[in-house]
Amino acid sequence: AMAAYLGNKLVQMGTKIVGVGRNYAAHAKELGAAIPKEPLIFLKPTSSYVREGSFVEIPSSCTFLDHEVELGVVIGRKGRDIQESQAMAHISGYALALDMTARELQAIAKKQGLPWTLAKGYDTFTPIGNFIPKKQVPNHSDLELWLEVDGQLKQKGSTNDMIFSIPVLVSYISTIMTLNEGDIILTGTPSGVGPVKAGQRMKAGITGLSEMSFEVKARK
Amino acid sequence: AMAAYLGNKLVQMGTKIVGVGRNYAAHAKELGAAIPKEPLIFLKPTSSYVREGSFVEIPSSCTFLDHEVELGVVIGRKGRDIQESQAMAHISGYALALDMTARELQAIAKKQGLPWTLAKGYDTFTPIGNFIPKKQVPNHSDLELWLEVDGQLKQKGSTNDMIFSIPVLVSYISTIMTLNEGDIILTGTPSGVGPVKAGQRMKAGITGLSEMSFEVKARK
Ligand SMILES: [Mg+2]
Ligand SMILES: [Mg+2]
Ligand SMILES: [Mg+2]
Repeated sequence: AMAAYLGNKLVQMGTKIVGVGRNYAAHAKELGAAIPKEPLIFLKPTSSYVREGSFVEIPSSCTFLDHEVELGVVIGRKGRDIQESQAMAHISGYALALDMTARELQAIAKKQGLPWTLAKGYDTFTPIGNFIPKKQVPNHSDLELWLEVDGQLKQKGSTNDMIFSIPVLVSYISTIMTLNEGDIILTGTPSGVGPVKAGQRMKAGITGLSEMSFEVKARK
Repeated sequence: AMAAYLGNKLVQMGTKIVGVGRNYAAHAKELGAAIPKEPLIFLKPTSSYVREGSFVEIPSSCTFLDHEVELGVVIGRKGRDIQESQAMAHISGYALALDMTARELQAIAKKQGLPWTLAKGYDTFTPIGNFIPKKQVPNHSDLELWLEVDGQLKQKGSTNDMIFSIPVLVSYISTIMTLNEGDIILTGTPSGVGPVKAGQRMKAGITGLSEMSFEVKARK
């Protein structure tokens, strides 16, 4: 109940969600994208958060809504130009998150040189689990992420396979934008992304730490 | 003093800044971009706000930091799928804003199909003026925006030249992302954008309503 409370509070107090693209080599490859030389970041609005018990909605503009299971890093202390060696002191904990992505809107944006905002920013595009205090995670580089659709395993990966580590991401992002308490970094997804359809149910987890489940429906 | 207070509160309580690109035909043309068929939106983080009295900073990664003077529309009441006819009821007021843009980072992003986040999202990239209550603005389609650099007029335009009107923007954006109290829409810039250099001073205004001034410096 405490974790659920903290999860809800997080959703209310956050002012930004910073997404990281292509942070697992196998996922960059499945998208046909190059492995980035520096972190590839984008923004999602906090209005895209959705908590367990509500639906993930497919907008009418969207044919292929892909699941991307990710480890969310929660900022606990404001910082700018944070050194990698100081990054962990700015993190209060973690949360399981899905970075729902309208894949064909993203393909159009990439092709036309437009922002990724539509592909990433619709309401319900950021399902988020309970807050996991940092002290419950002895090694953030050894977490198993998984996602099932209707009981079928689609994604399974280890945070050990991230191209840019959590301290590198926190440090890099903080040189661009000040990180505030309640902000979240979505650290990228392992391979196995794919579309979900109305009526399907996604279940995701960080093995041993967090689990959540969301039904998908078409947006009215 | 009340307006300054409200301006500071706005900066503290907002959870998103929604930028609108190419909303003045003359500006779309000066960038060599097509006139969009629907509004082109992107996100800036609220950490990019800066208030008068602080500097606008040029990041070391950035050679051409362009000024874009814009009318900011302030959301006063939460809404989703807002009808155009109801849009004004969701607006509490306005604010003068600059949508500072790292033009060459934007050009690289466009060319590579990457998000616009770096081009738009650095700290101090959203200078913002005092809150202007809606009742002080009898006609939001007849406001004059202007911007000077070191006393030289660079931009001057009327909100009457927007391609998509304020009610259309509010309605459109709210079909994608729920708009919350304190959120701001930057409604696009008239022509005349161009780079500023360290040591220069930008002065901008909405004639008869708001004025502000910012000195530019290189980021340390
Ligand atoms: Mg992702
Ligand atoms: Mg935001
Ligand atoms: Mg602009």
